[in-house]
Parts: sequence; C-alpha cells; structure tokens
Amino acid sequence: MEKHFDQELDALKSEILKMGALVENSIAESVESLKQLSEERARKVIAHDKMVDQMENAIDEMCVDLLALYQPMAADLRFITMVLEITTDLERIADLGVDIAQRVLELTGKPLLKPLVDIPKLAQLAQRMTKEALDAFVRKDAEMAKRVILLDNEADKLRNFVQKELLEDYMMKDPTTAPRALPLLLVARHLERICDHATNIAEDVIYMIEARVVKHHPELLQDK
Amino acid sequence: MEKHFDQELDALKSEILKMGALVENSIAESVESLKQLSEERARKVIAHDKMVDQMENAIDEMCVDLLALYQPMAADLRFITMVLEITTDLERIADLGVDIAQRVLELTGKPLLKPLVDIPKLAQLAQRMTKEALDAFVRKDAEMAKRVILLDNEADKLRNFVQKELLEDYMMKDPTTAPRALPLLLVARHLERICDHATNIAEDVIYMIEARVVKHHPELLQDK
Repeated sequence: MEKHFDQELDALKSEILKMGALVENSIAESVESLKQLSEERARKVIAHDKMVDQMENAIDEMCVDLLALYQPMAADLRFITMVLEITTDLERIADLGVDIAQRVLELTGKPLLKPLVDIPKLAQLAQRMTKEALDAFVRKDAEMAKRVILLDNEADKLRNFVQKELLEDYMMKDPTTAPRALPLLLVARHLERICDHATNIAEDVIYMIEARVVKHHPELLQDK
Repeated sequence: MEKHFDQELDALKSEILKMGALVENSIAESVESLKQLSEERARKVIAHDKMVDQMENAIDEMCVDLLALYQPMAADLRFITMVLEITTDLERIADLGVDIAQRVLELTGKPLLKPLVDIPKLAQLAQRMTKEALDAFVRKDAEMAKRVILLDNEADKLRNFVQKELLEDYMMKDPTTAPRALPLLLVARHLERICDHATNIAEDVIYMIEARVVKHHPELLQDK
C-alpha cells in the first residue's frame, strides 16, 4: 500500500509539472501573438485553454481519490491539499493568458502603438516566476520560493511604468490612441496578475515546507 | 466521534458564511467609498482585508485538521475539499474590493467624471452573486447555483457598457479626462471579476452536489 501511495504521489507531482508547462506555454504564446499581432496565434491560445481546464479537473480528482483511498497524514496530507490550491492558481494563470489573447484580438488590424519593450520584459518575469514557483514546489525548496516572492516588486514596478507611459505619453497627448493604448495597458495588468498568482504558489510552498502561515503574513519572511 | 464530526462540519459551514459576510461587506464598502470619493472609507476597506486573510488561513487549517482527525469519505470529503477552493475564491473577491479601494485613492481630490449609474448596478450584481453562491453552497441547492451562473452574462454586458462609454464618450472626446476615466473603467473590470469568482463558487457547488464536473463543462448545464 505504502509503495503504491508513493508512486501515486510521484504521478501527481509529474501531472502538476505538466500542467505548469502548459500554462507557461500559454503565457509565452499569448505575448508572442501580441508581438506579431497574429489573430491566428491568439485564437490558438484561447482554444488551448480547454486542455488546462481538463488538467485541473483531472488533478483535483486525483487528489480527492488519494485522500479517500490512503487517508494520508501530516506532510502528505498537507502536500495534497496544497496541490488543490496550486491547480486553482495555475488555472487562473492560463485564464489570464486567454485574457491577453482577447486583448490581441481587439488590436489586430491596426498598427501597434509603439514597439514593445517593457511588456515582453514583464512577460518573461511572469513566466520565470511561474516556473520557479513550481520548481520550488517539486524540490521543496523554501529559499527558492522566497526569491520568487521578492521578484513580485519588480513586476509591480514594470506594470506601473507601462501604465504611466501609455496614459501620459499616448492617451492624454493624442486621444485617438486610446483604443490601441487601453488593451496594451490591460495586458500589462494581466501579466502583473500572473506574477501575483506565482507569488501565491510560492507562499503555498513555504507554508507546506515550514507549516506556518507565510501567506498573508509576509513579515514572517524577515525572521529567517 | 460521528457526532463531534457533524458538529465540526456545522462550525466549518458557519465560518464560511461569516467569511462570506465579511467579503460582501468589503464589496459594498469599496463601492460606497467610490460614490462618496471618501479616502477614509477606502482606507478602511484596505485595512479590513487582513481579517479576511486571517479567516482564510483559519478555515483552511480547520479543513486540514478535519481531514487528519476524521478521515471523512465520499460526500463529506468532497465538501471539505470544496471549502478549500471556496475560501480561495472568497479571499480573491476581498482582494478585488481592495483593488477598488485603491482606484478610489487614485480618484480622491478630483471631482467624479460623471454620476455613477452602471457601476453601482454592477456592484449590486456582484454582491448578489457572491451571496447567492454561498447560500446555494450551504443549502446544497444546485438550482440556485445554476441561476448564479446565468447572471454572469449580465455582468459581462454591464462591464462592456461601462468600458465603451468611458472610452468613447470621455477618453476619446476629451483626453484630459483619461486619468479620471481609467480608474472607473478598472473598477468595472474588478467588479466583473468578482462575478467570475462567484460563478466559480456556484460551479463548485454544483460539482459538489452532482459530483460531476460542470466547472469547465458548461454544456452539462443544458442537459438538465
């Protein structure tokens, strides 16, 4: 029984990583569709989201089955309840990839307002934070998770910078740019929200490892 | 043992409703602070959010303890894993209340761009959907949950209407309105996102009752 349980836990871990890879791909592809203003690529991101939804359902079912079948205790129990929370965050990240793709559909047919500089930077940060939060989870590496949390400030700064530029240098100077500036501004907000979800996952990882509530108690990060 | 478990389940249910009431209050207060452009009220919403975070942690701990202590099966197991997902949604709804309050802080000191009509309507819808989703959960009422899901279209319509008006009648006609129009536009988006979370909760309720995956499978709603 014990051996089967360990095998099933490994399978669960591998499914979470697969779901993570799908979600990272969705962020990368949504921003690529923006760079190229490609309706076709944007529609692929939207269609692709069904796979992520199916994975969330399948992994949640695996968790409920594991709880029912093995009634795990302590660390294993906490691991499985954390998976339930992490899949929720991953699914929302994929939804934000869809949100970005929908902004792209609002933009196609018109030239891009300006060359994209900070949005791709923010997208890279969002992918990195998502990937490292999941790596920290699989490796049970609290230090790595803490580094992810610290990156969130940078995401906030980049988002604020993009928003200020689009508002002050475009929308306010030339109001005809507003319909093209607003979707870009929202893309920056969607990407920053992805970084928030990656931060949530990192907080869950620390919670799982240290079994104390760092989530909503960032001051606890400082006493290490 | 059985009796204690039932008592603890009832306690869990009552805590979820308390958390729901806090969250509904946070939506109502954030929109009230917008109507009055009251910095003081907005700051109260932001401060108040800590209570919601603490409740989420406390309820999640209750769930893990219940799983460890009683190793419940079938319907009870599913109920408890659903509570873990519902608290995540409730906590995000409260965060969106904070987002609205932050938009209010960006607006205070300047007159409101226009009398608010559709934003309060959208706020009422967001509160109603949140409340009814939780009522459906406590009463295990799948029909009520389905009605919540159907309301989400109305939320999308209101949000689109607010956004179109602010963009076309304000930002594009008079670019100096952009810094006052953008926060209002974002408030409408935050409220619509609250409706999405209420919809998620309603989907979880149906899932719990019917033990089939309506979440991400809206077509299943139709075969009833």
